[in-house]
Amino acid sequence: MARTGRRPGNQDTREAILRAARETFAEKGYDGASIRTIAAGAGVDPALVHHYFGTKDDLFLATVGAPLDPAVVVGAALEGDPDGLPERLIRTFLGVWDNPVTGKAALAIVRSAVQHELSARMMREFVTTRIIRRILTRLPIDPAEIPRRGALLASQAVGLIMVRYVIKLEPLASAPPEDVVAWIAPTIRRYLFEPLPLPGGPAEPGG
Amino acid sequence: MARTGRRPGNQDTREAILRAARETFAEKGYDGASIRTIAAGAGVDPALVHHYFGTKDDLFLATVGAPLDPAVVVGAALEGDPDGLPERLIRTFLGVWDNPVTGKAALAIVRSAVQHELSARMMREFVTTRIIRRILTRLPIDPAEIPRRGALLASQAVGLIMVRYVIKLEPLASAPPEDVVAWIAPTIRRYLFEPLPLPGGPAEPGG
Repeated sequence: MARTGRRPGNQDTREAILRAARETFAEKGYDGASIRTIAAGAGVDPALVHHYFGTKDDLFLATVGAPLDPAVVVGAALEGDPDGLPERLIRTFLGVWDNPVTGKAALAIVRSAVQHELSARMMREFVTTRIIRRILTRLPIDPAEIPRRGALLASQAVGLIMVRYVIKLEPLASAPPEDVVAWIAPTIRRYLFEPLPLPGGPAEPGG
Repeated sequence: MARTGRRPGNQDTREAILRAARETFAEKGYDGASIRTIAAGAGVDPALVHHYFGTKDDLFLATVGAPLDPAVVVGAALEGDPDGLPERLIRTFLGVWDNPVTGKAALAIVRSAVQHELSARMMREFVTTRIIRRILTRLPIDPAEIPRRGALLASQAVGLIMVRYVIKLEPLASAPPEDVVAWIAPTIRRYLFEPLPLPGGPAEPGG
């Protein structure tokens, strides 16, 4: 148990839990990590982990530093007319990233992933469990195709982040959200819903 | 002039030139930077800059740390059947990035851009002058559309790098190059050659 005393002690315990969680999630993945293992790594009781961070889900989000839970944020975008889904997804995505507070926190995750192998593994777990597993499974997509479609979706989404917010290449850096939506949506639509060539198959099906 | 003496002196001078070049390119952009200004910043004669680094082009590539000149690398890909151009571009791109030596050097540029504002500006100059200006201008694209098409191309290319080499999300992380080519080519084709909605226009032209 961390040292006694009020605030500093609590802060130390929180930090120890986050450190143990980071190592455990990165090493074992989201599914393999348990609150029990994380608590043991931090030298605290599992109940204390729940006390400070809530569920394993909440702890994972806190460990990654995610300002929001993507599955919750896109909830509304998933409802309604399926035809307009890609547009709604990009609009919601830009709402988070264009916002100074949530955008800054989200960018910190990307920066960290590029600098540290551990953080890169955390980001991979985050994309896999939070975005691919929680969002793509709610869409009319063949389950066998979800990993590939998810990775392609991530490639366009992360690239948009890099060009708009890091490299700041114009006109993407300062284009109004609705322009970005219009330019990118057909790519997202194809990655999510349209036929893709099979792995190892011909470059274009029927081509 | 840097201190006298053989090797260490030369090394110091090279470093001083690279440092001055980095600051000058980042501050004034590729076009605004002159060998004269860079030499003054390094406290050396312009002739010495040319002696060590060749042309302004060569110095720029050395300053960015680019392992290759993209315009030279894709030279062959630009020739031949225009229909297969996106596939050839991605194939060439993956050839550089999948190669352990050039891939590592290229990844260092991305890592640096994410960490330092100065490096991000250098990467922006690099993409603008080396890729957009040198490659896209050789393609049958309306010049007014080149910046937008270039930024969209960059968004997919940088995102592919991030997902395949940094976050390492499967199946993109270890898919054979030809699969990646087949999955990504239609996106590159659309960004380069197909109609895009006008800025501020309706989400889909005629839609």
